[in-house]
Amino acid sequence: MLLPHRTVETPVFMPVGTLGTVKAVPQDVLETLGAEIILGNTYHLYLRPGHEAIRRMGGLHRFISWPRAMLTDSGGFQVFSLSQLRKVTDEGVSFRSHLDGSSHFFTAEHSIDVQIALGADICMAFDECTEYPADRKRAEESLRLTMAWAERSLAHFKAHCSEVPWFSESGIGEFGGRRQSLFGIVQGGMYRDLRRESAERLVEMEFDGYAIGGLSVGEPRELRMEMIAEVLPLLPADKPRYVMGVGYPDEIEQYARMGVDMMDCVLPTRAARHGLLFTSEGRLNIKGKKYAEDQGPPDPACHCMVCRRYSRAYLRHLMHSGEALAGTLNSIHNLAYYLGIMERVRAELASY
Amino acid sequence: MLLPHRTVETPVFMPVGTLGTVKAVPQDVLETLGAEIILGNTYHLYLRPGHEAIRRMGGLHRFISWPRAMLTDSGGFQVFSLSQLRKVTDEGVSFRSHLDGSSHFFTAEHSIDVQIALGADICMAFDECTEYPADRKRAEESLRLTMAWAERSLAHFKAHCSEVPWFSESGIGEFGGRRQSLFGIVQGGMYRDLRRESAERLVEMEFDGYAIGGLSVGEPRELRMEMIAEVLPLLPADKPRYVMGVGYPDEIEQYARMGVDMMDCVLPTRAARHGLLFTSEGRLNIKGKKYAEDQGPPDPACHCMVCRRYSRAYLRHLMHSGEALAGTLNSIHNLAYYLGIMERVRAELASY
Repeated sequence: MLLPHRTVETPVFMPVGTLGTVKAVPQDVLETLGAEIILGNTYHLYLRPGHEAIRRMGGLHRFISWPRAMLTDSGGFQVFSLSQLRKVTDEGVSFRSHLDGSSHFFTAEHSIDVQIALGADICMAFDECTEYPADRKRAEESLRLTMAWAERSLAHFKAHCSEVPWFSESGIGEFGGRRQSLFGIVQGGMYRDLRRESAERLVEMEFDGYAIGGLSVGEPRELRMEMIAEVLPLLPADKPRYVMGVGYPDEIEQYARMGVDMMDCVLPTRAARHGLLFTSEGRLNIKGKKYAEDQGPPDPACHCMVCRRYSRAYLRHLMHSGEALAGTLNSIHNLAYYLGIMERVRAELASY
Repeated sequence: MLLPHRTVETPVFMPVGTLGTVKAVPQDVLETLGAEIILGNTYHLYLRPGHEAIRRMGGLHRFISWPRAMLTDSGGFQVFSLSQLRKVTDEGVSFRSHLDGSSHFFTAEHSIDVQIALGADICMAFDECTEYPADRKRAEESLRLTMAWAERSLAHFKAHCSEVPWFSESGIGEFGGRRQSLFGIVQGGMYRDLRRESAERLVEMEFDGYAIGGLSVGEPRELRMEMIAEVLPLLPADKPRYVMGVGYPDEIEQYARMGVDMMDCVLPTRAARHGLLFTSEGRLNIKGKKYAEDQGPPDPACHCMVCRRYSRAYLRHLMHSGEALAGTLNSIHNLAYYLGIMERVRAELASY
């Protein structure tokens, strides 16, 4: 996947850097771990420090000092999950900030403007993330909005994408005239025909890539699998296919083998902060008493900088003592584990 | 200063790793910053995870994966500043844990036993940290205790120092038969004659090094300076001289030039967590609004990994967003600044 800031090998797992930081992990460590592309959340960065400030500072890459690829979501998911007093119309969504209660109005055009100001390599069309469960009528209405917003997102993106802070009109310069990409998002709740309709209409619109959204919202894993299996064959194989917000290690491995190119999830870092480690031997709750004097590495099969240096006993001690280093070290290991899965799948796929 | 785990160049600043972690900073970063020796707090590690557990795991170095030098304090300062329901007798101090209210009894012998189990390169004699202000009678009585405990600490240390987890009786092995050191601690409140008496009596006892304690307890800086100037000439110049718990950058520079070999302080890391940076241009509160779009490095004259990569605007954003990375990056810079001062003073002293 050739992006302005980085050529990214797929399938790829993208660590989530909500506010311009993958929580508790310094950027140089992310580089050492082999993270090629990370996420920023449009809703969070719009509220704090604000997209205009980031634009003035040259865009998100420069602001957070991350030279590799980035993707921003549309803000849709967070508007629906975090904000208060939402009111949705065809025009857009009015809501109050979860930080200070201030009033805001997001439209497809505004989401794109914010994402162009942030200047990630990949932007996402503004969508409504259909909740689970949703009845047929609700899913249809939600999809109607998402499809209309997709068209408006695309039109606005085409008209303004050259305004990205780092774009060079001349085609000369660091990024050789390459521009941001815009991905459409397939919705449709848990209805296979709605999902199909959504995918087909988006493909007609010709986005740079396609995402499957509205998953990991509480549905059983089999249903999620069913939706992905339904949609994936409809999306062009020569463009990136991205399943949003998943999942557990075995899940991301499964989807990658099915042909999914990109995935992101807060799970490795969020679980880490609660002491849950993903290892080749399964999940390990490092707070457990049985690790109190366990001098073995968190994962004997892992070669990450944490497993090479620290013991389970030490990580447990850090968690129990409420030390900040616990979040950092646990997150580094979990990210290494996730990125390692993708590396292994890439190597296997390449050997076919 | 030739220690079992490291030959340490002096004057040296020792970052404080209370619970076996210099808060928010990974061990490999401390190595890169050039930290040669770090502190562990006996009181904290005794309570959690417990010195017997650490002994069984081979000592503190191995438990926290820190191959360079370490020093443990005696626990005295924390018993007096953190614990509850203290009762002091000639025998020792009974107190309740600040964590769970459990009852404990510390004597000079027990402090030494705990420190031998932890196995740092340098141990400290058990002392009473005289509070400020303290009247003459109180300071005399406190000093009497500290001197009696110093003798008992030394006798117990001599009898048991070969029990350190990593000691090799044969003189063969990683540490070539080198043993832990024990330092005595000068007390005496803010009374010059008591300080002199304390220093002279400790020197007679023949410790491996000498510390000046009971400073930075609320006294004005001039008084602190006066006490150090009074005591320093009485301590043998061929043994390490350590001023405990100081101080601001200009202060540690001043003491180092006076001949102080070792200092430790929580200030660089504690201030960092509150957004206070020490720079060549003075103190900088990174939360300030004026840094919101300041793309310059935290300290233009600093070459640390934080100043080379991140802007003031980004550090401010991390602080305002409550992100863990703020504490990590701010701490790294402040430690680099403190360690850099000592490096500069060492180079100047060497060039005389």
